[in-house]
Amino acid sequence: MQAKTIPSITPERFLEIRSKTEQICSSLEPEDVALQPADFVSPPKWHLAHTTWFFEQFVLSEFDENYKVFNPDYAYYFNSYYNTVGDRVLRAERGLMTRPTLKSVLDYRAYVNAHMASFIQKGLASDLEDIIEIGLQHEQQHQELLIYDIKYIFGNQPTFPTLHHTVPLTAEPQTQDFIPVEEGLYTIGHQNEGFCFDNELGQHKVFLHAYNISNRLVTNAEYIEFIEAGGYEDFNLWHAEGWDYIQNEKIKAPLYWHKVNGAWMQYTLGGFTAVDGHLPVVHVSLYEAFAYAQWKGCRLPTEFEWEVASSQFNYGQLWEWTNSAYLPYPHYKKVPGALGEYNGKFMVNQMVLRGASVATAKNHSRATYRNFFQAHLRWQFSGIRLTK
Amino acid sequence: MQAKTIPSITPERFLEIRSKTEQICSSLEPEDVALQPADFVSPPKWHLAHTTWFFEQFVLSEFDENYKVFNPDYAYYFNSYYNTVGDRVLRAERGLMTRPTLKSVLDYRAYVNAHMASFIQKGLASDLEDIIEIGLQHEQQHQELLIYDIKYIFGNQPTFPTLHHTVPLTAEPQTQDFIPVEEGLYTIGHQNEGFCFDNELGQHKVFLHAYNISNRLVTNAEYIEFIEAGGYEDFNLWHAEGWDYIQNEKIKAPLYWHKVNGAWMQYTLGGFTAVDGHLPVVHVSLYEAFAYAQWKGCRLPTEFEWEVASSQFNYGQLWEWTNSAYLPYPHYKKVPGALGEYNGKFMVNQMVLRGASVATAKNHSRATYRNFFQAHLRWQFSGIRLTK
Amino acid sequence: MQAKTIPSITPERFLEIRSKTEQICSSLEPEDVALQPADFVSPPKWHLAHTTWFFEQFVLSEFDENYKVFNPDYAYYFNSYYNTVGDRVLRAERGLMTRPTLKSVLDYRAYVNAHMASFIQKGLASDLEDIIEIGLQHEQQHQELLIYDIKYIFGNQPTFPTLHHTVPLTAEPQTQDFIPVEEGLYTIGHQNEGFCFDNELGQHKVFLHAYNISNRLVTNAEYIEFIEAGGYEDFNLWHAEGWDYIQNEKIKAPLYWHKVNGAWMQYTLGGFTAVDGHLPVVHVSLYEAFAYAQWKGCRLPTEFEWEVASSQFNYGQLWEWTNSAYLPYPHYKKVPGALGEYNGKFMVNQMVLRGASVATAKNHSRATYRNFFQAHLRWQFSGIRLTK
Amino acid sequence: MQAKTIPSITPERFLEIRSKTEQICSSLEPEDVALQPADFVSPPKWHLAHTTWFFEQFVLSEFDENYKVFNPDYAYYFNSYYNTVGDRVLRAERGLMTRPTLKSVLDYRAYVNAHMASFIQKGLASDLEDIIEIGLQHEQQHQELLIYDIKYIFGNQPTFPTLHHTVPLTAEPQTQDFIPVEEGLYTIGHQNEGFCFDNELGQHKVFLHAYNISNRLVTNAEYIEFIEAGGYEDFNLWHAEGWDYIQNEKIKAPLYWHKVNGAWMQYTLGGFTAVDGHLPVVHVSLYEAFAYAQWKGCRLPTEFEWEVASSQFNYGQLWEWTNSAYLPYPHYKKVPGALGEYNGKFMVNQMVLRGASVATAKNHSRATYRNFFQAHLRWQFSGIRLTK
Repeated sequence: MQAKTIPSITPERFLEIRSKTEQICSSLEPEDVALQPADFVSPPKWHLAHTTWFFEQFVLSEFDENYKVFNPDYAYYFNSYYNTVGDRVLRAERGLMTRPTLKSVLDYRAYVNAHMASFIQKGLASDLEDIIEIGLQHEQQHQELLIYDIKYIFGNQPTFPTLHHTVPLTAEPQTQDFIPVEEGLYTIGHQNEGFCFDNELGQHKVFLHAYNISNRLVTNAEYIEFIEAGGYEDFNLWHAEGWDYIQNEKIKAPLYWHKVNGAWMQYTLGGFTAVDGHLPVVHVSLYEAFAYAQWKGCRLPTEFEWEVASSQFNYGQLWEWTNSAYLPYPHYKKVPGALGEYNGKFMVNQMVLRGASVATAKNHSRATYRNFFQAHLRWQFSGIRLTK
Repeated sequence: MQAKTIPSITPERFLEIRSKTEQICSSLEPEDVALQPADFVSPPKWHLAHTTWFFEQFVLSEFDENYKVFNPDYAYYFNSYYNTVGDRVLRAERGLMTRPTLKSVLDYRAYVNAHMASFIQKGLASDLEDIIEIGLQHEQQHQELLIYDIKYIFGNQPTFPTLHHTVPLTAEPQTQDFIPVEEGLYTIGHQNEGFCFDNELGQHKVFLHAYNISNRLVTNAEYIEFIEAGGYEDFNLWHAEGWDYIQNEKIKAPLYWHKVNGAWMQYTLGGFTAVDGHLPVVHVSLYEAFAYAQWKGCRLPTEFEWEVASSQFNYGQLWEWTNSAYLPYPHYKKVPGALGEYNGKFMVNQMVLRGASVATAKNHSRATYRNFFQAHLRWQFSGIRLTK
Repeated sequence: MQAKTIPSITPERFLEIRSKTEQICSSLEPEDVALQPADFVSPPKWHLAHTTWFFEQFVLSEFDENYKVFNPDYAYYFNSYYNTVGDRVLRAERGLMTRPTLKSVLDYRAYVNAHMASFIQKGLASDLEDIIEIGLQHEQQHQELLIYDIKYIFGNQPTFPTLHHTVPLTAEPQTQDFIPVEEGLYTIGHQNEGFCFDNELGQHKVFLHAYNISNRLVTNAEYIEFIEAGGYEDFNLWHAEGWDYIQNEKIKAPLYWHKVNGAWMQYTLGGFTAVDGHLPVVHVSLYEAFAYAQWKGCRLPTEFEWEVASSQFNYGQLWEWTNSAYLPYPHYKKVPGALGEYNGKFMVNQMVLRGASVATAKNHSRATYRNFFQAHLRWQFSGIRLTK
Repeated sequence: MQAKTIPSITPERFLEIRSKTEQICSSLEPEDVALQPADFVSPPKWHLAHTTWFFEQFVLSEFDENYKVFNPDYAYYFNSYYNTVGDRVLRAERGLMTRPTLKSVLDYRAYVNAHMASFIQKGLASDLEDIIEIGLQHEQQHQELLIYDIKYIFGNQPTFPTLHHTVPLTAEPQTQDFIPVEEGLYTIGHQNEGFCFDNELGQHKVFLHAYNISNRLVTNAEYIEFIEAGGYEDFNLWHAEGWDYIQNEKIKAPLYWHKVNGAWMQYTLGGFTAVDGHLPVVHVSLYEAFAYAQWKGCRLPTEFEWEVASSQFNYGQLWEWTNSAYLPYPHYKKVPGALGEYNGKFMVNQMVLRGASVATAKNHSRATYRNFFQAHLRWQFSGIRLTK
């Protein structure tokens, strides 16, 4: 990751971003925070601690000579990159750790926040600003994952608990237009103003053939048509791999949807509610997005088509599946060190999503932002924009 | 289950037994109670609620006409026998339910306790006494399982939390004698005084050939000898199935043991501590008990040999593996109804353990008590007594 | 295993028993002999070679000083007991070996047969007679397994091939009587005349309470009644473990049964044919046998009840599930050496079957014979006799 | 698929291509042809029959009114695209079918060949030429898969059989040069002369930034350096997913390699032999190719870089992993009907390989040919070309 930090790092900005994480979690009970119901989910407590560990490890322990580590074991418990063989008797598995308690983790956050605020107050060298900026961006990424994971934890138990921090969708204009884009040579990637991640760099030229892209996302009403037309039963619409996946998992609708007495209902963080046909469809996999597009005689945009056209439509409610695999840009360079191996190692068997979502932290995304998930995942806030 | 209830059911006895469950859990944090780290483990919260549901379902809802159910959904959440297809959108899975909270479950316990105390106070018909007695015995079984499950939850995370309610072992006399028992026709099974479970009934005669049985359990020091003599590497000592199991699971020592700097350490509810050679070895599977006995040129007793000789040695610290499969006694009868199908359906591929353990509720066991677990399980408090 | 060999070992008897194995396989194609469609199945070629290896390894290589091993690699390919870590680059997995060819294996059989015949002709010491007798009994066990395995290979492919060597069942008298047996002390186990396996030894006394046992096996017609009465859908009839098993495996009828246009059909070695209601039901698991007996208000006999009553009914068409776990007799002793560890290591989580089947070699079984399989297995020729 | 058929379809060309398939299989034994040792492998017999079924189904049954189907069940047994629910009692699973025999399948081939030759002789409409051309290309694809699958079947059994049809590699010039390619707009895709598959169509422009590509493949000697430098133990070199894969599968070297007495040996279709350092390394996954390139400070080419530079180096011994995911070209169109859904449905989670291999049928590949496999697969003849 590289950062040209605008705005700069101040104690106020630092604490404001950090406090957002606690706000998301403010209505959680201690019972909610230690569970990992699926491989791709982390317990909320882990997010709270792991983001804190980042600042302790890469800033305070290294650059603040008076800093005393809050608890030396936490680095071991909450470090996602820990890949060498440990000398400890037990491996820390995220989903098995009931301790430390939520309270201890919140104390840890407060402790590190206080030290960071003092440390920032004293003034920062430019490379330290970069590291802290990365830490804040990292915090915001985990804020979004927190929302995904809490929704998954709540949405897969029969009590359907609600979260104070709801992230409602709003209806887009229902009229659909296809915006034409002309063929030509376009510039792709981040232009080095403001922060970006390493995977957006390597600005380069891409030649695009002419295409048309929808001004809005696919709606629930449209998606229900697809379901009712037998979309989930027609293997011709699906990737072979996607077809096997929905058969094995018995998938017949987006995640969190349930048919109750003939009506489509869904779990949201605000509660169990009827599916609103005017809202964009959310929680679909790449497989489902692809099949839907096939059924409509359209296709998904590539990430380049999306980026080039993005100034011509509104986006930001849902991450939008593209038909681009997550691969390095031509001039992509791995930054050395632990911070550096951040993105490159995921560049196989993942698909790019562009945009942002109602769960994304404010100012965290941009038109060049490359999000990525495996094709079968659905717990992220993902939607569909058609191209042809 | 059948019950000739001595002592009788009083509000005091009812509340005393019930309160023991809360005592076991008193030092748990809310974070600890919702986790299910293995199939054979239930979350502590589930035990707390499920035992309560028993009294609500089989006593109050059926016989107390003024009783108002605490929460109608709880029957669905906390009913282990629920086997028909539900009409609910989501299956209640024990390990996924963060809600209801621990506090709600404790409120549920208090509510049901209060109603039960009043109900008992009014006087009980004899068959109701039987049902409540079964409920209390059921409560005590779950008290023991709670201790197993808490130990498993705590013993499989790197923080190794401790529990206020420790259940320490004490050393037996170290001298080993083999008590001789003559061949003859013996009576086996419960004699119908005091409570017993259905699987103890069907008193019957068994002819035993002469045998000798140890006056004490195998110690940690003896078991370490077995380990160091390569017992876990010599497939001739093991059942074929046991050998495959320890290979697949990479088992080299009892559960909760760790070799740290050349010394054997173990997790106990009181903390991480050195293995004491004088104490009986605990947390071994039937496979390990069998292999140890083979290595010593001995064997495990049958459950009949154990029962006949049990008056001649002390027992009660650990459940003792027998080489008897868990099968019905000759006159075993299934009691009709939901309470009746309690034990018979488990009578395949399980092995009998006899005795009791430091985790067993007071007065809950007896010489005829037939405990049973699958041969590979180790999280119960199980030990080894030799026979030859 | 111990053997008091009657009749004695002659070249004629040796070759006659051995040739039976080739007869069973005589209508197989080379394509049929290398496949292993399930863990519990061995390829026919493996049986042909493995039984031969026994005589080469334990007789010729050890006692015939002029013998030259047919192929030194065969010991490695066809030795089921091979449990130490090999120095070869690849593990021999039965189901992956297309080579050596069937022809090579038949050559191997002829070569070893010729040497064995000459060797026997020269006269044998008594302990050598014992080893060869065990080899012949071992050969007969594999003859039966061959029939199971060929049926499984043929019965699980859409072409449903037939085998020249069919093993048809015949109808028993359809009238059912329950033979009463009085309570008393009975002697169980082999009396040391004629050959027996180690698990039959340790003759001992068993006290039996009075019981009644059916004069015939359960028929297909009776079993169809159970199916049509919803036996496979009523979890109260099943072991908990059995219920899970039939749910997971979607089992609704005995193995090889198919409902075609409303009629029950089954694959037999003679072809795909209608189920004949008068014949005994075959290819059921212990779970199914138990559930059927529950449904009839009966139970399965113990192996002791079966053995004591066996002189009073006809048996031999199907192995009969008992409700006894496979465990050692009181005086059971492990015979030292490779031949010795034959049976004891399987004595956990298996159930005993008594009798013999149409697939059993002539003179291979007897009233004390203890066959055993895991409770879920169905590819063996197993049936049901009721007790009450 | 679309085809401008040059050369045209004649009985001679048809029979010549078809006979190549039998030639590859000519030294197989019947025992070799029915086995499926892994999901991605098909039994040789299946390849022989399936390619024949293509001509029966899409040509003879549809266009030759006198044609009588060889065996009506074969369509069911040998049709890989069969995706609707069948009415047959048993699903045809490729790896379980010992019947029909090899001889029957060869008779099937001869029968269809004779009818096809007569049919072609009578003259063909242009669209029929296209279909037959696709059938022949399909035959050639299966010829290559046959070689992969036979090698896998032979290379995973301890006997290491050899195949008459060996496909030896030859050493390239050992000097390594990096060929520079200038940035610019290039045309990618097939130009519609001669046959191509649908995935090569949609000719389009791609802008490439400047790069340098190796004149030769990575050699065994170079790859051994990587192994000995600890390449398989340094997780920094690997995709996260690749790292997990090699840990789980315990992969430490290319497929078919074995270290024997300190020297690297490998199974080839010609036998078990020492690894020759001068030859190109083969049987590596995309993960291994990527890690090797990382270790060398290089990268893999994209499929576009490969295609543009391909006229400047020799290729054809091994398929070359590119760092391009297998995705549709801009103007990619699904051809309607069963033949049409050929390629598009695999366009997710696969990586493109370019070139051809020693196992590829003559004239079957070209510079625009897009082969594809999942990133973890290694049984195909895949090698590594570096770019920087």
